[in-house]
Amino acid sequence: MSATFEEVCFLLLYERLPIKQELEDFKLSLAQKRNIPENIISLLKILPIDMNPMDVLQTTIPLLVQNDKTIEKPAIEHTLFSAENLIAGISTITAAWDRIRNNKKVIPPDMELGHAANFLYMLNNEKPGDELTQFFDTALVLHAEHSFNASTFTARQVASTKAHIYSAVSAAIGSLSGALHGGANVRVMKMLKEIGSVDKIDAYIDNILSSKGLIMGLGHAVYQTDDPRAIILAPMSKRMGQITNQPQWYELSRQLEKKGKAAFKSKKQREIFCNVDFYSASLFYTMGIATDLFTPIFAVSRVSGWAAHVIEEQFAMAAPKPSLYRPGAEYIGDYCGPDECTFIDIDDR
Amino acid sequence: MSATFEEVCFLLLYERLPIKQELEDFKLSLAQKRNIPENIISLLKILPIDMNPMDVLQTTIPLLVQNDKTIEKPAIEHTLFSAENLIAGISTITAAWDRIRNNKKVIPPDMELGHAANFLYMLNNEKPGDELTQFFDTALVLHAEHSFNASTFTARQVASTKAHIYSAVSAAIGSLSGALHGGANVRVMKMLKEIGSVDKIDAYIDNILSSKGLIMGLGHAVYQTDDPRAIILAPMSKRMGQITNQPQWYELSRQLEKKGKAAFKSKKQREIFCNVDFYSASLFYTMGIATDLFTPIFAVSRVSGWAAHVIEEQFAMAAPKPSLYRPGAEYIGDYCGPDECTFIDIDDR
Repeated sequence: MSATFEEVCFLLLYERLPIKQELEDFKLSLAQKRNIPENIISLLKILPIDMNPMDVLQTTIPLLVQNDKTIEKPAIEHTLFSAENLIAGISTITAAWDRIRNNKKVIPPDMELGHAANFLYMLNNEKPGDELTQFFDTALVLHAEHSFNASTFTARQVASTKAHIYSAVSAAIGSLSGALHGGANVRVMKMLKEIGSVDKIDAYIDNILSSKGLIMGLGHAVYQTDDPRAIILAPMSKRMGQITNQPQWYELSRQLEKKGKAAFKSKKQREIFCNVDFYSASLFYTMGIATDLFTPIFAVSRVSGWAAHVIEEQFAMAAPKPSLYRPGAEYIGDYCGPDECTFIDIDDR
Repeated sequence: MSATFEEVCFLLLYERLPIKQELEDFKLSLAQKRNIPENIISLLKILPIDMNPMDVLQTTIPLLVQNDKTIEKPAIEHTLFSAENLIAGISTITAAWDRIRNNKKVIPPDMELGHAANFLYMLNNEKPGDELTQFFDTALVLHAEHSFNASTFTARQVASTKAHIYSAVSAAIGSLSGALHGGANVRVMKMLKEIGSVDKIDAYIDNILSSKGLIMGLGHAVYQTDDPRAIILAPMSKRMGQITNQPQWYELSRQLEKKGKAAFKSKKQREIFCNVDFYSASLFYTMGIATDLFTPIFAVSRVSGWAAHVIEEQFAMAAPKPSLYRPGAEYIGDYCGPDECTFIDIDDR
């Protein structure tokens, strides 16, 4: 019993699971939107090759609006079209950027492949095998949606002003790029490389404990148990390590999890838990994906959740009158409020 | 007693008014950051000329990160550098885009001019007179900061994930682009043009009242009185109309305000008030600025407020532990919560 990424996208956008013909139609519709405007490729070619891929995504996503003749008509069916355009387009842009920055030719999308396989094909110029495809597809499913996380909240907030979905998704990418959010999977991998081998784990944990630091990937704002996504990712990470003859990354992760949890419990009287980033790092790494693409791949998946939330914000939540997110502010400490400021002319300062 | 836009920027960024030498240094520092990376100009040249200028800004702002070698070091002094880079850069990009889309040559910034005058110079290839400069400068001051409005809240939220300030500002531009937020000044101008002349006002208001519509620019989420900014903008709009021999736009606005307020009071028992967009529309229009640049000009100014809020979010608000904005969700109506969903395999649907 399982669903593909496309099936989950359909569920998120249409709020129900598709029947077979609907899923086939949806997959075709997505595949048809994989080609991106030519000027995005031109832009990618004039960017500095060391530019952060999340900055590249944030800058290029608004350009997908060019593909979209429906944007001036704010209706749910048009926004669903735009959502598909975004889901398809972000995958192509991410793969194209990795090719271009490595001075390789851009691989056009293959209509015959599913979403996960096509992404890996555009990235590597090699059609992936069934197991790799399935693992990557599962990773996309697991990252697709997670309620009101920071980037989704950003997308909804931008959408609440009646800005279009491309603006909302580009903004969400900015939010996801942060080290405390999607950027965490990159930091997990950096940590694993820094530790380097299983015998260095104890010293690493001791250092974390004495410096009041955190072990990356252990801890989450919501879960007080191991993230259910981590439980699915861990065995895939193990298996990919075996297939690619790099078992050390899973092994390092597993031992770090075990020893880290025990150390925090005994020395800090605190339980810590695996989050989604803990095993996705070693999984993506053993798949041969560049470390700084981990967060963009999060975006390649999460765009489906963002799109669903934007649609809910703009259509399903239609309030009696238009409303946007504008919290109040309380001025505390040294901050004087708006009524307490006095202006002194520059000559009298 | 007044302050220039640069003086207000200093106040926002450093939380105090500058003395004369500090202000001179700050102006010079801003002016030195006006040149933008060459590939931004290249990008502008390959965009479709009918692209919405807010989309253009959202897409180009992350590219200013290229100018910024400090971005990897998250310290307040580096973020202040980035803030100046953004305030200077967004002005150059906005003017350059208007030139390029009109097939005119890009005008390099003039170091000798202040921020307001330099923007108008880059836009028009003509140094503005003192009165025009002062009015534009005042308009920038009035738009610079307004507490937790939607775009500022977006910027803070992105910054809360520890994303960098370019990501936060680009996201805020997306939020500002919405029709309910910064996009409103464009809609005010469209409405004025649609009404066309003073004698059509009564019919327009009758139509609004019977269709339960709103008069654009009359109403605000916060103020229950005329927006203090509108009170300053109105006489500038009047004077610009006189100077440029287009008094009709101010006149139309004034009569619409008067009649609209009276009609809502007598027929809806509701008081409505001018917001910042109501007179900025006719002011910018009589300045010869393209209508769809009104919202980008809002951004040219508001970037200073966004930057100040990002700095507060990332440095002044340092909580005991890192935290980001992640609201809870309550599932209501037809929406089942995460615990109530069941998956049915595609063969059984």
